[in-house]
Amino acid sequence: MDFIDALQWRYATKKMNGKKVPQEKVDKIIEAARLAPSVAGLQPYQVIVVTNRELLQKIQPIANNQSQITDASHLLVFAAWDHIDADRINAVFDHLIAERQQPEEKVAAYRSRMLEMFPSRDPEVNFQYAARQAYIGFGMAIMAAALQEVDATPMEGFNAAALDELLQLKQHGLRSVSLLPLGYRDAENDWLVNLKKVRRAPERFLISL
Amino acid sequence: MDFIDALQWRYATKKMNGKKVPQEKVDKIIEAARLAPSVAGLQPYQVIVVTNRELLQKIQPIANNQSQITDASHLLVFAAWDHIDADRINAVFDHLIAERQQPEEKVAAYRSRMLEMFPSRDPEVNFQYAARQAYIGFGMAIMAAALQEVDATPMEGFNAAALDELLQLKQHGLRSVSLLPLGYRDAENDWLVNLKKVRRAPERFLISL
Repeated sequence: MDFIDALQWRYATKKMNGKKVPQEKVDKIIEAARLAPSVAGLQPYQVIVVTNRELLQKIQPIANNQSQITDASHLLVFAAWDHIDADRINAVFDHLIAERQQPEEKVAAYRSRMLEMFPSRDPEVNFQYAARQAYIGFGMAIMAAALQEVDATPMEGFNAAALDELLQLKQHGLRSVSLLPLGYRDAENDWLVNLKKVRRAPERFLISL
Repeated sequence: MDFIDALQWRYATKKMNGKKVPQEKVDKIIEAARLAPSVAGLQPYQVIVVTNRELLQKIQPIANNQSQITDASHLLVFAAWDHIDADRINAVFDHLIAERQQPEEKVAAYRSRMLEMFPSRDPEVNFQYAARQAYIGFGMAIMAAALQEVDATPMEGFNAAALDELLQLKQHGLRSVSLLPLGYRDAENDWLVNLKKVRRAPERFLISL
């Protein structure tokens, strides 16, 4: 399927049928997020994949009791770094030079700039910045699902603090920012499936200069 | 090309060769962003496509003099709503019911919730929220470029206030959040093209629960 067709086909599935998504497809959705670009290659977020049914039942009330949480095959939680300190930045640059077998000098100036920029800033500003990076991966994951004809429902309406507590994300230095249940549409019981996809007209979305 | 192969193929191109990207491919990249999902369907951002060479030359110093700004074929600017008020929300819902030929009651409760949520909040919080939505489209645009073998360089290192001033984005109620020059790699002169793509190992990116 062409990617434009895939994006037309996808919609925020409101009712899923409980069918399992093959692990290979889920892996490729997560891989799309892992390959996403990010500022200075920091990848300042992680993806948590939840398949434990008891845990999903506990997440459901935290996410406005939306049925997709438990009718999904897999639930992806995107969680951004809650702070960006020198340790986190250095780990990324150390990994980079090890993987590329480069001398330290190659990245020294860039590393210094990042060490100067992030750790001194308000952690909340850094978290917001990290969250944006997570959304690049989130967008790619949504598109990767559609390209494989896997349904997905991007969700932001949940109690992030309660979810962080339940999943113990604080001990990983993470805060949840968005959810993506993966599964298959229950077309007969989904009120949205046959409604027209509406987007702002191109001439109101685009400015040409 | 499979989307995983496309994401492996892409990289933040450092040197572009000035070759033109066919308009049809550019249109599909922008269309991917236009079709991206967003909170309540608000699409709280726009894409500005810049091809005017004089304007690109003025943008270059605002974007750390990066060569891709002027060697690119097209420059996409992602700009988020600088505020979310009742007019903007109502325009979206009015458009939705007109397009779906639905009675107003179908969306009345949802519209009310959005009217309650956004306009009373700090505009900066809403802007940050809008920016995240823009990044979903940004991610999709980056992937759409790769799928068409168009090079692209996601950029956040620029003076947003100066760019907003130059492009007069304030009068559209917008603030720039990211740039995406589109073009083709100048492989002989790009220091990054042959370096290994490095990402955090899957087991450090993913948490399974």
